[in-house]
Amino acid sequence: MKRLKWGMIGGGEGSQIGPAHRLGAQADGNFVLAAGALDADAQKGRAYAMELGVAGDRAYGNWQEMLEGERNREDRVDLVTVATPNSTHFEITKAFLEAGFNVLCEKPMTMSVEEGEEIVRVARASGKICAVNYCYSAYPMVREMRQMVASGQIGRVRLIVTNFSHGHHGDATDADNPRVRWRYDPAMAGVSGQFADCGIHALHMASFVAGDQVRSLSADFASTIPSRELEDDAMVNFRMEGGTVGRLWSSSVAIGRQHGFDIQVFGETGGMRWASEQPNQVYYTPVGGRTQIMEKGEPGLSNEAARLSRVAIAHPEGFPLAVANIYVDLAAALRGATRDALPMAEDGLRSMAAVYAAVDSAAQEGAWVDARPPMLRA
Amino acid sequence: MKRLKWGMIGGGEGSQIGPAHRLGAQADGNFVLAAGALDADAQKGRAYAMELGVAGDRAYGNWQEMLEGERNREDRVDLVTVATPNSTHFEITKAFLEAGFNVLCEKPMTMSVEEGEEIVRVARASGKICAVNYCYSAYPMVREMRQMVASGQIGRVRLIVTNFSHGHHGDATDADNPRVRWRYDPAMAGVSGQFADCGIHALHMASFVAGDQVRSLSADFASTIPSRELEDDAMVNFRMEGGTVGRLWSSSVAIGRQHGFDIQVFGETGGMRWASEQPNQVYYTPVGGRTQIMEKGEPGLSNEAARLSRVAIAHPEGFPLAVANIYVDLAAALRGATRDALPMAEDGLRSMAAVYAAVDSAAQEGAWVDARPPMLRA
Amino acid sequence: MKRLKWGMIGGGEGSQIGPAHRLGAQADGNFVLAAGALDADAQKGRAYAMELGVAGDRAYGNWQEMLEGERNREDRVDLVTVATPNSTHFEITKAFLEAGFNVLCEKPMTMSVEEGEEIVRVARASGKICAVNYCYSAYPMVREMRQMVASGQIGRVRLIVTNFSHGHHGDATDADNPRVRWRYDPAMAGVSGQFADCGIHALHMASFVAGDQVRSLSADFASTIPSRELEDDAMVNFRMEGGTVGRLWSSSVAIGRQHGFDIQVFGETGGMRWASEQPNQVYYTPVGGRTQIMEKGEPGLSNEAARLSRVAIAHPEGFPLAVANIYVDLAAALRGATRDALPMAEDGLRSMAAVYAAVDSAAQEGAWVDARPPMLRA
Amino acid sequence: MKRLKWGMIGGGEGSQIGPAHRLGAQADGNFVLAAGALDADAQKGRAYAMELGVAGDRAYGNWQEMLEGERNREDRVDLVTVATPNSTHFEITKAFLEAGFNVLCEKPMTMSVEEGEEIVRVARASGKICAVNYCYSAYPMVREMRQMVASGQIGRVRLIVTNFSHGHHGDATDADNPRVRWRYDPAMAGVSGQFADCGIHALHMASFVAGDQVRSLSADFASTIPSRELEDDAMVNFRMEGGTVGRLWSSSVAIGRQHGFDIQVFGETGGMRWASEQPNQVYYTPVGGRTQIMEKGEPGLSNEAARLSRVAIAHPEGFPLAVANIYVDLAAALRGATRDALPMAEDGLRSMAAVYAAVDSAAQEGAWVDARPPMLRA
Repeated sequence: MKRLKWGMIGGGEGSQIGPAHRLGAQADGNFVLAAGALDADAQKGRAYAMELGVAGDRAYGNWQEMLEGERNREDRVDLVTVATPNSTHFEITKAFLEAGFNVLCEKPMTMSVEEGEEIVRVARASGKICAVNYCYSAYPMVREMRQMVASGQIGRVRLIVTNFSHGHHGDATDADNPRVRWRYDPAMAGVSGQFADCGIHALHMASFVAGDQVRSLSADFASTIPSRELEDDAMVNFRMEGGTVGRLWSSSVAIGRQHGFDIQVFGETGGMRWASEQPNQVYYTPVGGRTQIMEKGEPGLSNEAARLSRVAIAHPEGFPLAVANIYVDLAAALRGATRDALPMAEDGLRSMAAVYAAVDSAAQEGAWVDARPPMLRA
Repeated sequence: MKRLKWGMIGGGEGSQIGPAHRLGAQADGNFVLAAGALDADAQKGRAYAMELGVAGDRAYGNWQEMLEGERNREDRVDLVTVATPNSTHFEITKAFLEAGFNVLCEKPMTMSVEEGEEIVRVARASGKICAVNYCYSAYPMVREMRQMVASGQIGRVRLIVTNFSHGHHGDATDADNPRVRWRYDPAMAGVSGQFADCGIHALHMASFVAGDQVRSLSADFASTIPSRELEDDAMVNFRMEGGTVGRLWSSSVAIGRQHGFDIQVFGETGGMRWASEQPNQVYYTPVGGRTQIMEKGEPGLSNEAARLSRVAIAHPEGFPLAVANIYVDLAAALRGATRDALPMAEDGLRSMAAVYAAVDSAAQEGAWVDARPPMLRA
Repeated sequence: MKRLKWGMIGGGEGSQIGPAHRLGAQADGNFVLAAGALDADAQKGRAYAMELGVAGDRAYGNWQEMLEGERNREDRVDLVTVATPNSTHFEITKAFLEAGFNVLCEKPMTMSVEEGEEIVRVARASGKICAVNYCYSAYPMVREMRQMVASGQIGRVRLIVTNFSHGHHGDATDADNPRVRWRYDPAMAGVSGQFADCGIHALHMASFVAGDQVRSLSADFASTIPSRELEDDAMVNFRMEGGTVGRLWSSSVAIGRQHGFDIQVFGETGGMRWASEQPNQVYYTPVGGRTQIMEKGEPGLSNEAARLSRVAIAHPEGFPLAVANIYVDLAAALRGATRDALPMAEDGLRSMAAVYAAVDSAAQEGAWVDARPPMLRA
Repeated sequence: MKRLKWGMIGGGEGSQIGPAHRLGAQADGNFVLAAGALDADAQKGRAYAMELGVAGDRAYGNWQEMLEGERNREDRVDLVTVATPNSTHFEITKAFLEAGFNVLCEKPMTMSVEEGEEIVRVARASGKICAVNYCYSAYPMVREMRQMVASGQIGRVRLIVTNFSHGHHGDATDADNPRVRWRYDPAMAGVSGQFADCGIHALHMASFVAGDQVRSLSADFASTIPSRELEDDAMVNFRMEGGTVGRLWSSSVAIGRQHGFDIQVFGETGGMRWASEQPNQVYYTPVGGRTQIMEKGEPGLSNEAARLSRVAIAHPEGFPLAVANIYVDLAAALRGATRDALPMAEDGLRSMAAVYAAVDSAAQEGAWVDARPPMLRA
């Protein structure tokens, strides 16, 4: 199987996201880093790309150079990952899609609904892949839950309860820490703080597992640390197209919660729950029966779950390999397989619509608002 | 220490609540059952009371007989427990208070806010105890949490997240089961289903631990089993007088959750969580520090927690002894001790006000409404 | 149902064991305390008994007085609980059995095998009940495990792994604490420290659940705090009559373990585990299948488990009610029911034989020795 | 940082161990696969190596060819991984060491103590690295435990209790499954079954964390499925050079346990425990204090733990990245860093000595035997 050529924008030396993507892309031998514009500092970016094995003529100083350089090559990269600051995702992703590249964009895909719609339009016109890195959806046992719903194992989904809450911004004396402060400053973070940062992972997860989309929502936002302009705690009630009731809590001041992302899905004939800190198990309960502990790697799981697991039952697999699974699916898609479960530009757009809807609802004391992007309303 | 004389109304043979109260009252030797009107069937009630050791002349056929019989005795009962069907709590409790008895009333104390205010007025005028059986508040480690908040250990409470969700009414094919059906029928259950049944325990817990009261709320109710008139799933956002943000989820269709009552309390300098299925531990995290597992019975706990624990550290104590702790506190109060932590008529009233507020809010698509009973507004 | 008359020896004011037995005996209304010799100080013992409601002429100054007083009464107590210091259990239990009383003896029943055999002989001759307080065996879910084995649900039991380890004696600087020191001093504790104190609960549990007896064992003892003469850590390998392999670890220096008593039972067609800190669940795994969480109170449990549970599914019940369940079974036995699951004098004897066998084996560097009391060898 | 050249022997298409090593070696970009003899079938091995990107002249048909081919190249591989069937580890490892290559050998390093001593001698003479893949020791939080012991945080280690027990061979009807059967057949597995397969990981872990070595041991082996010649359940008591008491249970018939590898370490001033199914936490309890949950990635951990963690606190990292961490350390060692924590040939030798000692002890009914390889006795 020939390795695919991969290019990266952002993720330079010292970033946290760079190594995560490189591990993800390279872990299974699917991609080889062939080009990069890794740093805002052109010099440093070029040097680091070469250190990572990129040829000198493909170690670019910025994304515009990379776009020019790659579009004219016969052996242009098969995939570009956009891992730059949030406000630049739109521009870069759009430019590469228009030039005929496949793109994996970090979340949030854009800063507005309009930009999101534009990306969807461009992606559709280009015929290229525009994926968004909702990597939690690529955990084997999350895929299993999605299959269980799709196959009717728990019946119609009545209710989804999902949380993404941590306490890492709970220290008010740390409020000037630049790694924290920007997240609650509209000038840098946009219209939403915690909900846009973490909540949309949970909202995507709900849609992903249910195989349905959010239609409307009602939000309650709070800045529990008063100096913050944007919310550090959010509760969002929602309804899906098919009638499923949703509850989503997201907080960054939940001191003691670490990576508190979990989901509970309750249907007519069963319930299940999954938590990101123990991602290799699903607790499944048939109605009237006992809770069963499902294990990654156990016999009888779906192909989706089996395909994305690397080691035998109960050997834990963690977050970096969930990212890797996004690349596994991208490689498969680039090689012609279907890509049903890959989070795509439409998902990125829906997230942005939900963020704006939640902000709008919260400003109206929880009024119910349409959560769908205009272009994706029926 | 002389045993106190105890009378019981309701809780006859075959009821679940009767043995729970008898165990609670007798476990520590504080109360001896001296009178009772245990059953709607006078004959059966008298026979069962005598079987339980009540003298023949104090084994009454109904509560009216008991009221007459006891009010005229020198050795009248020190405490009356009202464990009859919900709709009768008001009338019986009021009558006994007016006659100068101390009362422990099962929840809900009344079916309306007006009735609740009446009970509070009568109780205040009588100078007698009117307690309500919010027994979860009497777990040793719940008392410990309350003390931790009161002593400032976690700073101002920013946020409380509490759930009381189970899945025992999740089987739609079981909907005609009479033990389930009445709960969702307004003719029998009143204005609210799951929230009035379980949610108010969680709401009381939030107030109890925070040492503060709910001021306003916004509710989203759903009948996820469509044949139900009343809600089987409820989300309530609230704000306390002191500004604390609250999130409360209560469901009876959460298949796989058993006795899913838990609370998380997040303050400026720490967070903590407790779950009713493991009631002997609190997970406490100081801001910036590690989560610590606090154990019932460990050295250094507050007097409140120590006083209500019967066996050494890590020997589990369960729900029946939480009920017993309510009786421990009642006995102490009857013997003259202070009774700060006992849930009282005001708490029962506040619950009823919150139920009506939630119903009102849910009917208005989540509009924020005042959750306080009129007589307790500042 | 008439209450049974109950007498207590030991368990005076300030003891921990006294309240546990009183709660156990009285919680369900089966027994009423009718006589007692509660304290080594006759005066204090009498006063406290009367405070607990015992009539003055049955508030005895010591057990000999009580024996004389009760044996001559028409309304003599139906059951005597022996909760005195360990070294006196033999003498008192024997005397009361010989006088025709039913006895519940605290563990250890005796200090030697010979004494144990004597108790068994006397009990058999008397036709009275001589039970021993292995109260963990009375948890509903432990009874359920026993029934599962008995009914063949996990096939022949291949392997049992059980631990009773805590860390409460792990502080060497606390070694002079009199509540700790005596346990490791042969002059006070006898031939064994931690194994005799906690290990025999685990050994009884293994036999109880398996429905089989220990035939031989090999022990490794250690005094990890060097000043201790007796072991504070013990490992015992054993074989049951039916060939089951056993592993038992018991420690008092396992800092961080609180009440670390658990058991795992592995058979041909399934495995299960139970832990005393979460006594209301059993984790059961059929061979080749998923682990299922069994809950106290769930539908379909055995009569044994259902009978000994007081509140609905998932309301936790704890240690004090396990003790109470011993009294439930004693009351049933005294009223004529069968008493198959009650731990009896033979169990107390077997424990003592196992303690001596373990001490013997440990002294011989782990040589395998017969663990059976001579009189119970086939 | 220049990538290192890596060669692999074994681990061909369809093997489980091959992808695990490739992911481990490539995940962090330290190694590039430059040579390989991947399969017993020379043709298939060459083809697969080329598919993985190995140049045609370095895609070898067997290890002898690879040895000849590589030893004569200027750009010979920096490291050879030996992932062939167990019985061939000795011969191949020895040959490559003698030829001056660095080797990472899968466990068990050899099939006898004599072979193990020979490897140690050859490795020492060569001056090259001979590492053994005890990969659990490379989990960040295992390194943290080792540092905690080394720095005296829990005082002298009194006691270690470790288990490596699963139930995946518990189905007797599956006994003819070739993937299971060979493990209990001396002709294929050697002198020991479960202890040699899993137990030695636990024994290495004990030594690794304690910073001490096993001096003597006593073993109890059982074949709980009678058709098995080698043990499927083993209990090993041991003593370390410094006096630490050890308990090690390893089973393959523990139905319901999945990857049940855990360790508890108890010292004079604290205890801690870690489990491989939740590898990102350590539960630490200071004597007299509360249990604290330590999280991978939390502030204040040792350099060792921080260095081997890739993503932020509470993002789980799993088994494949523990393998990767072995390669991280190998890369560091090859680049000149110290390699104190890397498991080396001496560790492989000690394991083999312990296996033979345990077999010997078990055959003598648990007699205590010296567990040290002759050449490493003081």
